[in-house]
Amino acid sequence: MKLANMVGDRFKERPASCLIDSHALMVRGGYIKNVANGVYSQYPVMKRISRKIENIIRDEMDKCDGQEVLFPVTLPASLWDESGRYESVGSELLRFTDRTGSKMVLGMTHEEAAVQLVREWANSYAKYPFMIYQIQTKFRDEARPRAGLIRVREFTMKDAYSFHTSQEDLEKYYQRQYDAYNRIFARCGIPQVKVVASDSGMMGGSISHEYMLLTPAGEDSIAVCPECGYSANVEAAPSIIENENKIAKADLEMVETPGTGTIEALCEFLDVPAENTAKAVVYQRNEDDTFIVAFIRGDLDINETKLANTAGCEIHPGEIVDDSILTAGFIGPVGINEKVTVLFDKSLKDIEYLVTGANKVDYHYQGFNVDRDCDNPEYVDVAKIVEGGICPECGKKAIKIERGIEVGNIFQLGTKYSKAMNFTYLDENGKEQYPIMGCYGIGVGRMAASICEVSHDDWGPIWPITIAPWQVHLCCLRSDDAAAKAKADELYDALQNKGIEVIYDDREVRPGAMFADADLLGVPVRVVVSPRNLAENAVEISTRDKQIDKEMVPVDETLDKVDEIIQMLTDQIYEKVK
Amino acid sequence: MKLANMVGDRFKERPASCLIDSHALMVRGGYIKNVANGVYSQYPVMKRISRKIENIIRDEMDKCDGQEVLFPVTLPASLWDESGRYESVGSELLRFTDRTGSKMVLGMTHEEAAVQLVREWANSYAKYPFMIYQIQTKFRDEARPRAGLIRVREFTMKDAYSFHTSQEDLEKYYQRQYDAYNRIFARCGIPQVKVVASDSGMMGGSISHEYMLLTPAGEDSIAVCPECGYSANVEAAPSIIENENKIAKADLEMVETPGTGTIEALCEFLDVPAENTAKAVVYQRNEDDTFIVAFIRGDLDINETKLANTAGCEIHPGEIVDDSILTAGFIGPVGINEKVTVLFDKSLKDIEYLVTGANKVDYHYQGFNVDRDCDNPEYVDVAKIVEGGICPECGKKAIKIERGIEVGNIFQLGTKYSKAMNFTYLDENGKEQYPIMGCYGIGVGRMAASICEVSHDDWGPIWPITIAPWQVHLCCLRSDDAAAKAKADELYDALQNKGIEVIYDDREVRPGAMFADADLLGVPVRVVVSPRNLAENAVEISTRDKQIDKEMVPVDETLDKVDEIIQMLTDQIYEKVK
Repeated sequence: MKLANMVGDRFKERPASCLIDSHALMVRGGYIKNVANGVYSQYPVMKRISRKIENIIRDEMDKCDGQEVLFPVTLPASLWDESGRYESVGSELLRFTDRTGSKMVLGMTHEEAAVQLVREWANSYAKYPFMIYQIQTKFRDEARPRAGLIRVREFTMKDAYSFHTSQEDLEKYYQRQYDAYNRIFARCGIPQVKVVASDSGMMGGSISHEYMLLTPAGEDSIAVCPECGYSANVEAAPSIIENENKIAKADLEMVETPGTGTIEALCEFLDVPAENTAKAVVYQRNEDDTFIVAFIRGDLDINETKLANTAGCEIHPGEIVDDSILTAGFIGPVGINEKVTVLFDKSLKDIEYLVTGANKVDYHYQGFNVDRDCDNPEYVDVAKIVEGGICPECGKKAIKIERGIEVGNIFQLGTKYSKAMNFTYLDENGKEQYPIMGCYGIGVGRMAASICEVSHDDWGPIWPITIAPWQVHLCCLRSDDAAAKAKADELYDALQNKGIEVIYDDREVRPGAMFADADLLGVPVRVVVSPRNLAENAVEISTRDKQIDKEMVPVDETLDKVDEIIQMLTDQIYEKVK
Repeated sequence: MKLANMVGDRFKERPASCLIDSHALMVRGGYIKNVANGVYSQYPVMKRISRKIENIIRDEMDKCDGQEVLFPVTLPASLWDESGRYESVGSELLRFTDRTGSKMVLGMTHEEAAVQLVREWANSYAKYPFMIYQIQTKFRDEARPRAGLIRVREFTMKDAYSFHTSQEDLEKYYQRQYDAYNRIFARCGIPQVKVVASDSGMMGGSISHEYMLLTPAGEDSIAVCPECGYSANVEAAPSIIENENKIAKADLEMVETPGTGTIEALCEFLDVPAENTAKAVVYQRNEDDTFIVAFIRGDLDINETKLANTAGCEIHPGEIVDDSILTAGFIGPVGINEKVTVLFDKSLKDIEYLVTGANKVDYHYQGFNVDRDCDNPEYVDVAKIVEGGICPECGKKAIKIERGIEVGNIFQLGTKYSKAMNFTYLDENGKEQYPIMGCYGIGVGRMAASICEVSHDDWGPIWPITIAPWQVHLCCLRSDDAAAKAKADELYDALQNKGIEVIYDDREVRPGAMFADADLLGVPVRVVVSPRNLAENAVEISTRDKQIDKEMVPVDETLDKVDEIIQMLTDQIYEKVK
């Protein structure tokens, strides 16, 4: 394709609204165009990259015995009622009514549709296991879309669903997907993607993993142990705390603590460290606004995901409007309103001396001891794991917190959907059983943006050859020079005839502008034809990643050299595919 | 792929809800599954067919210098406000609000999105002409989805948009698309698709064509002239009427006609033929419910599309609730309420003697003559063309009305969208101009269903080899026979190693069931391995279209023979591609 004809503007200035590099480069390079908040059109360059990523994913899914299907984008609410998710999922599920007044949703994930598609067919154990997948548009009404294609509302996703007759079989297949995902990321040029344990969230099920591409631009926090290799999303990481009793046990005593509504003020006033306070964090259940108060060691924070899982329902930060129920700033476990659910984070276990609220304005208790002063306290793990914390795997105080982008996830769903949707099969003994499911997702656009995020320089993306929009970027400097133009035209045809994907820039523009555009398109191999090079009977070849920098190659050897470089770049990728 | 593992049920009974054959076969064959009214999931068989059709379309679009892009499914209402279509399009445009209360729509066509994508880039004449296209999910909230994939609400469509600096250039490019469409249909095995003139409807623009696959199951009516080859959608066909004056001119006279509220009753009562009556047909404008009364020769019908185009607004059949405005059953041009817009179809021209309503219950006029009795009557063409009518092209009374399915359409849009959306470029003289647009659509699922509709027998679809889900259907009769199974397994591998797409049925089922399933899958080449055939050291080969019926082929020659048949079937298709 000729660059002059290609739809999409490229420009130099970084848009102020782009907070991360990949977003800025994809806007500056004519990859994407914003249409609505979190909704983008794709220009030809981006569409080509998407297609290549999709084809790699499709190939790996087919190798996992996947059968490609297509589910609708629009789904009836009745289907989501069957699973209970029409009610349970928050406003990221876009609900609408059609012209007849029927309630519908925009698919943000397709477990219900997958079950609906197969539940009559898969009525006998002999049909199992099997896997179906699609690559299709999804919509998730994110509250805060941001970072270009990293967090959007409308996106293209590969979602796969597997069906099994035993947990063992699911686990065996899950491992195949686990490996296939590693191959997909390696084939797309990001072998460094890290698998971490994750929280299953609204998907249900117990075991799940996320594939994280570590980068400071990432939105997720990952707890990593350099000692043993443990890694987990902080949302899913257990928090282990060992307390030393620096302050000895004492009697429970109410003390006046005027104006100490915050932990900081309280610690200063009473001269105790935050580790010796039991901080109250207030949440409310979404369904009925009833209160949950979680007490936690004053220097730690609540992990909302773990708390929601513990509570078994969706929650939101509590708002105290009625003093008769909770006394904001002075909440404590002793004498707390009986309507409130009280939980103690495990970080409070074995601390002999604590300061905590007295449920009375300007008063606290000191000398508080959970086990002594509360009846049957319920200890739960709802604390956020911290930098330098104890590794849940090896027990060493070595946890590091890193940032990453979630580029894929896999879930063992169990029987959540088959049970809810009354999906059964007859086993070998003619007995009805619920199929056991797994599901496996990858966002195509997010993957492209993530690759750009970890593989770019100041001038543009450095696309891995396997997903690059073209393999070769051919530049003709001085198209007004007939000989140069003729040679470049000839090379363009010759490269294409060899089946090589070429973007050809024969515009009459300054070399600087031409190279800036080439950098923004990030094509792996660059071939420059110019009168000066031709005078030496040569072309100049570089790779975008600078492995090869302005190598002069005899004109006659151009095709072989280009072939060789493409092969080299491809081999470098495949060396890392296990 | 092994048939035993393939997701999707096949069964014998025709579902009562399926009114046309393609719908019934695609449900019975495990191609599609209904999810909501007019919304389907695609099983693997259908997905394979869709992909092949998409690839043929993509190839032809690329040959027309198309650049593939991707527009969103969800679009902001503000974009449709720019073109005015947020208001003007009826309830087939699905409108919804997102979580922030912003108004959005589901894309049913993407002219606005196309303009939005290119209007900054295409700011100079030097960028023109260019074409962008996508293959993407669309949603159109049809009032009455029906006929399986023929008329759905959610569908996959290729839509292309071209941009030009002159009408001549648009016309030149339009011709390329016109030809590309003919090639697409021929390559998909339906070279008989007919191009007809069409009405541009809500798309705007003047010239447009539809590609019609003629079949009694079609929903569209097409006027065809066997004499000169003229063809047009009846919605777009001019109606030409020549009147003979069998009743002489007479004075206008009011007569009492008790209980003659219908044309039939009136004609019987006054003993005049329907051709000598001026029938009133009442419509209302959607925008303000004001009345339009179209008078037409009593034996003819109104073409609502032509009437709406004439009126320049959307209309609906009128409902008369207030006698003071119109006297239902007795409406006539003489003395009609002045608030009403009165139009005369050209069929009333030159009739000297007419009977028409007197705007008074139980009274009509006879001897009515439009030109004599009305001031400046406005004659328009709003009649439906009829079987045996006059051809607008050659003037012969030869029109036939046929039924067809619209499988594609192309439009010359002109500057409707560029003007409305303030999209301009600078011409050679630095002057601002509005680009001229064309658009070109094909529905993928409808195409598949249409092909099935015209290419099937009682037992299943007969897929053209270019779009068939597989090329070869390999049956192993008596899989319990070790030798037969071994030979079939060997052939399965050998065919696949040759790059041939094979569906392999090695289930232990009766031959009848096996062949019924094969018929429902409609794969072009069938190879049957059985102990009986192997005893003769042969396999049995047939084509689904019965060109070859149970030919015994030596086992060793199977691969060559299959290759040869695939080539023959492919050649037969390509012979018809111009």
